[in-house]
Amino acid sequence: MMPLPYVLDLAGTFVFAISGAMAGVKHKLDLFGVLVLSFAAANTGGIIRDLLIGATPPGAINDWRYLGVSLAAGLVTFYFPSEITQQRNAVLLFDAAGLALFAVSGSHKALLYGLNPVMATLLGMLTGIGGGMARDVLLAEIPTVLRADLYAVAALAGAAVVVIANSLQLPSGAAALVGAALCFGLRLMAIKHGWRLPTAKSA
Amino acid sequence: MMPLPYVLDLAGTFVFAISGAMAGVKHKLDLFGVLVLSFAAANTGGIIRDLLIGATPPGAINDWRYLGVSLAAGLVTFYFPSEITQQRNAVLLFDAAGLALFAVSGSHKALLYGLNPVMATLLGMLTGIGGGMARDVLLAEIPTVLRADLYAVAALAGAAVVVIANSLQLPSGAAALVGAALCFGLRLMAIKHGWRLPTAKSA
Amino acid sequence: MMPLPYVLDLAGTFVFAISGAMAGVKHKLDLFGVLVLSFAAANTGGIIRDLLIGATPPGAINDWRYLGVSLAAGLVTFYFPSEITQQRNAVLLFDAAGLALFAVSGSHKALLYGLNPVMATLLGMLTGIGGGMARDVLLAEIPTVLRADLYAVAALAGAAVVVIANSLQLPSGAAALVGAALCFGLRLMAIKHGWRLPTAKSA
Repeated sequence: MMPLPYVLDLAGTFVFAISGAMAGVKHKLDLFGVLVLSFAAANTGGIIRDLLIGATPPGAINDWRYLGVSLAAGLVTFYFPSEITQQRNAVLLFDAAGLALFAVSGSHKALLYGLNPVMATLLGMLTGIGGGMARDVLLAEIPTVLRADLYAVAALAGAAVVVIANSLQLPSGAAALVGAALCFGLRLMAIKHGWRLPTAKSA
Repeated sequence: MMPLPYVLDLAGTFVFAISGAMAGVKHKLDLFGVLVLSFAAANTGGIIRDLLIGATPPGAINDWRYLGVSLAAGLVTFYFPSEITQQRNAVLLFDAAGLALFAVSGSHKALLYGLNPVMATLLGMLTGIGGGMARDVLLAEIPTVLRADLYAVAALAGAAVVVIANSLQLPSGAAALVGAALCFGLRLMAIKHGWRLPTAKSA
Repeated sequence: MMPLPYVLDLAGTFVFAISGAMAGVKHKLDLFGVLVLSFAAANTGGIIRDLLIGATPPGAINDWRYLGVSLAAGLVTFYFPSEITQQRNAVLLFDAAGLALFAVSGSHKALLYGLNPVMATLLGMLTGIGGGMARDVLLAEIPTVLRADLYAVAALAGAAVVVIANSLQLPSGAAALVGAALCFGLRLMAIKHGWRLPTAKSA
């Protein structure tokens, strides 16, 4: 049997891969392009984190299951795009869950590799948002996360809970639960209430 | 005397560098920009592969010949752009050869570093297509490989031959030849017959 | 007390972070987006250099001061964009200083990690220009450095001084000073006189 965190990680991978595939279908990429976007959206955050902390080869390269789950999500989206689009609310919900899982697991792994608390928090956030940024860069667009509603901040909050609990030597399982719940809740509230960060007065 | 695979690798580098330089000239970059695109188009695939498998510094950084060959191709293209453009068919032919060489050598190196068969195949493909993707991202365009005719699939097939032969403990030299020939042949057929992958029904 | 090179490195980080934040404000990113661009513009060059030479985790990830300085620059620019814009000449001046510092420190670090002279020079240049390239790619634009006035060449010259002096076993402190002064001077002359590299005759 696979341990629960691993199952959750694969679940997050599946959801993020769907977001990548949907963007690829929308831009009329071919089947290969859609599958590349699935993999990139689901795994780039974790891959960059692993390169930065020196964990080579990265988990998403070393373990074929991440690829398998990404391709499955990409194929489903490619062949049933309208069915996926109709589930837009479900996709948003799962995306928030994926963000929470990745932020928590990303900061946890960074701590394991000896990163300092500030950077472990940021790498948790990067694990959550990096895939979406890669997806948008490959589509020659400014990453949504740089100008959209509260997204990165939710990931940051979830990662911070894990890192602070680690500093205080609180149990890591409970911290992961609380961090993921905080990130997930913040993200849902931001969607529901349209919470946004300010933009600068134009210069 | 240099071993044959190394000579072939440098030949592939030269051809891919020309494709980068041609794109730079077309976008009216200055001399430096054209040379950066030459180097990026020829070496990014291998560099990313090496970072992912933990082979630092990457070959293209550690061995100045890759730089030298890339710059030579960039300078020729910069100063004689119309001559290069007239040889469009020759460039397509050499590009197919470069793709075949990189796919085969990329998967071979990934196997040497202990990657599993599935991922070694994908890293072979990435070695072949990564440079063209970097070239297009630097030009703020969606990578051609994500929506054009059969390109990545040819690289995938060539890399798969190397990996499968390795699993069956067949001789690696013959496998490299067969893999490169398969990739090269598939690519030429795709160009000649306009073979493409499907795109999704719009969502 | 902090050693002088480290202080200069942080000063370069601050100035480059301002250039990233200004670009983010101009593109109407939100506060988070502006801070990401600050960090990316200031630190991507050094991070890529460190990944390529195998120095993980990269300095900018391992030492929170780079983050702190980048965020401070981003916040100042976000809340006082017009004040920063009015200081355009000062920003250009500091940017030239940052380029000089990064080119010199980047090639120095590459030499320490055993890179050959040609590649150490290039990695010095990359340290100087990589952040600006990342900033532009995130904004879905062709990097300015690929088509603008003499910028990369100034960094290249500064890095070359450090590397040549190292080969001749001249004192590294003096070489760093001369290299930085050469890069800074070349950059200011290029701005003042509009020096540019040629572009190719259209193909």
